[in-house]
Amino acid sequence: MKFEVIKFSEKTRARRGKIFTFHGEIDTPVFMPVGTQASVKTMAPHELEELGAKIILGNTYHLYLRPGHKLIEEAGGLHKFMNWRGSILTDSGGYQVFSLGELREIREEGVTFRSHIDGSIHFISPEISIEIQNSLGADIIMCFDECIPYPSTYEYVKNSVERTTRWAQRCKKHHKKSEQALFGIVQGGLFEELRKKSAKDITDLDFEGYAVGGLSVGEPKQEMYKVLDYTVPLLPENKPRYLMGVGSPDALFEGVIRGIDMFDCVLPTRIARHGTVFTKKGKLVVRNAKYAKDFSPLDPECDCYVCKNFSRAYIRHLLNAGEILGLRLTTYHNLHFLLKIMEEIRKAIEGDYLLELKEEFFKKFGYEDEL
Amino acid sequence: MKFEVIKFSEKTRARRGKIFTFHGEIDTPVFMPVGTQASVKTMAPHELEELGAKIILGNTYHLYLRPGHKLIEEAGGLHKFMNWRGSILTDSGGYQVFSLGELREIREEGVTFRSHIDGSIHFISPEISIEIQNSLGADIIMCFDECIPYPSTYEYVKNSVERTTRWAQRCKKHHKKSEQALFGIVQGGLFEELRKKSAKDITDLDFEGYAVGGLSVGEPKQEMYKVLDYTVPLLPENKPRYLMGVGSPDALFEGVIRGIDMFDCVLPTRIARHGTVFTKKGKLVVRNAKYAKDFSPLDPECDCYVCKNFSRAYIRHLLNAGEILGLRLTTYHNLHFLLKIMEEIRKAIEGDYLLELKEEFFKKFGYEDEL
Repeated sequence: MKFEVIKFSEKTRARRGKIFTFHGEIDTPVFMPVGTQASVKTMAPHELEELGAKIILGNTYHLYLRPGHKLIEEAGGLHKFMNWRGSILTDSGGYQVFSLGELREIREEGVTFRSHIDGSIHFISPEISIEIQNSLGADIIMCFDECIPYPSTYEYVKNSVERTTRWAQRCKKHHKKSEQALFGIVQGGLFEELRKKSAKDITDLDFEGYAVGGLSVGEPKQEMYKVLDYTVPLLPENKPRYLMGVGSPDALFEGVIRGIDMFDCVLPTRIARHGTVFTKKGKLVVRNAKYAKDFSPLDPECDCYVCKNFSRAYIRHLLNAGEILGLRLTTYHNLHFLLKIMEEIRKAIEGDYLLELKEEFFKKFGYEDEL
Repeated sequence: MKFEVIKFSEKTRARRGKIFTFHGEIDTPVFMPVGTQASVKTMAPHELEELGAKIILGNTYHLYLRPGHKLIEEAGGLHKFMNWRGSILTDSGGYQVFSLGELREIREEGVTFRSHIDGSIHFISPEISIEIQNSLGADIIMCFDECIPYPSTYEYVKNSVERTTRWAQRCKKHHKKSEQALFGIVQGGLFEELRKKSAKDITDLDFEGYAVGGLSVGEPKQEMYKVLDYTVPLLPENKPRYLMGVGSPDALFEGVIRGIDMFDCVLPTRIARHGTVFTKKGKLVVRNAKYAKDFSPLDPECDCYVCKNFSRAYIRHLLNAGEILGLRLTTYHNLHFLLKIMEEIRKAIEGDYLLELKEEFFKKFGYEDEL
């Protein structure tokens, strides 16, 4: 993997860059659709290409449990298994495992947990997470970290940050596949001192990229932005920076402005399946009765395949009738919306009008303080 | 609508024809995918075009209940509502209403029934069925008939056949939209005498096409073929003949050989969603554990988009993990399979080798006696 900044924004910390992997070029800042179980829900890979997605995410925890990383390795890796020609990033499984709550137990060696599928008991350590990710064969893989709950005490976060650093060392040591770039993750909750310590310790280990983890876990968005304000400047300029699990339009703008290059989030695809779509004028719940006879497109200002071909009334009918095509259309549109925002953001960095774009965008879209 | 036979088979009753509607040319014999609720389940309209589907079916009962035929009329008709550029045939609602069993009551005037969605009470008569179908705006519409259960007594079927003829008269009288072709339906169960009577009475009314109804409702396939043997010759040669609700590969061959031009069936799409696919060597339950590490395509002899891009192992994983893409891929493949068979059948009629094609096909596929 190679990373190159091709333009620094003048009035913000934003950067316009390029990541090069064995599966192509990725223009940054970039939004990565989430393909948890080797599929971006409802979408076929050629549709993601059509939308201009260059990199998608796979979830190690899910793929390890089903169909199993060894099976995917036998298939020739995750790209080949799911027939995705672009790049892939896998997370470490840490976030999902810690989300299991009562079902897991953390020790220095690693984490024991129960499968959400069949209750079977499993163990993942930093070394095992790297081995699984090596088998999956993504272009970018992540260190196994502890993702702490919000809120947590200073003491708890401090211990966790120290362990995350020790785990990062073990991940780095165990990772042998040079064709896969390994990213470190900065943790530290909402404590400036701990974020600074984590940023120093993790960057000292020298990874190919850095993620800011443990955000968007329930804290107010303003808190998240504060963390980015003091954390991102501590990350090296010549490496990509990835804000994990974030993807609402406002957070994309605010993250980019603070120097973030990569984002991922299930939000656009998840809300789509529940009948909510993005429009230039804000979110629209197309399931609502008031759209029953609305024969206009989801977003009259959108030029995507869905908006050129189908009406709100039809999509509402499909969702109400439980037709899968409804889920496909709302998902396609929402991914188009976010990928298009990112394209506009990249152009705005190039043309030095990012703050103006942001203001204009939210004048119509409405600025929300929720993730 | 216009119909033209361009070639009669030499050794069978098969015909190679063309139907012309305002939405294009349809080569017959033709298989019509079923789009019950204004969507062929899991498929987007451009994918149906890709597969070469020229005509699809819509279900009047379902569309009347949800989203309502008046809404679809406001949208500009069913073609426009669902963005389908090809032709459409709507059934009369009869079959679905009679399938409700305890939930409906038949009188001479029409049928009172309870909605399967919310239990509300509705009434459909021949006139109302035609009005609904006029609103939906399909290219071909069907007379409202009584579809009797199997088995039924001679007496019951006789009364029903007579009522179906009276209802056909009322349908014809009430139908005013000349741009929609109205088809009559021959009933009569498994009684040769009643099929003959129905064929005479219905063809005397002079419709633009004729369906053989009330088959594939539980009787052995050999019984169905016998009915076709003595019924189809009673239908005029210059009108299309439609065998309703039939679409297994063996029944397609047997129907064509007996002079049928049109077929529809939910079978390929329904079994697909349950993880069963067609291959040249017979049906394959891709959900089965033995395909977990089978990285070959669903059908190694198939050149469809699915078989060129995805493996059995991947599709099995998607189905097991509840991923919608799995349902899309199996559906796409099964529709491709049936549409391709029909294409081969049409070529075989043109080249006078239909019986040879049938023999060769079933040598590999296995001849089944189930619908």
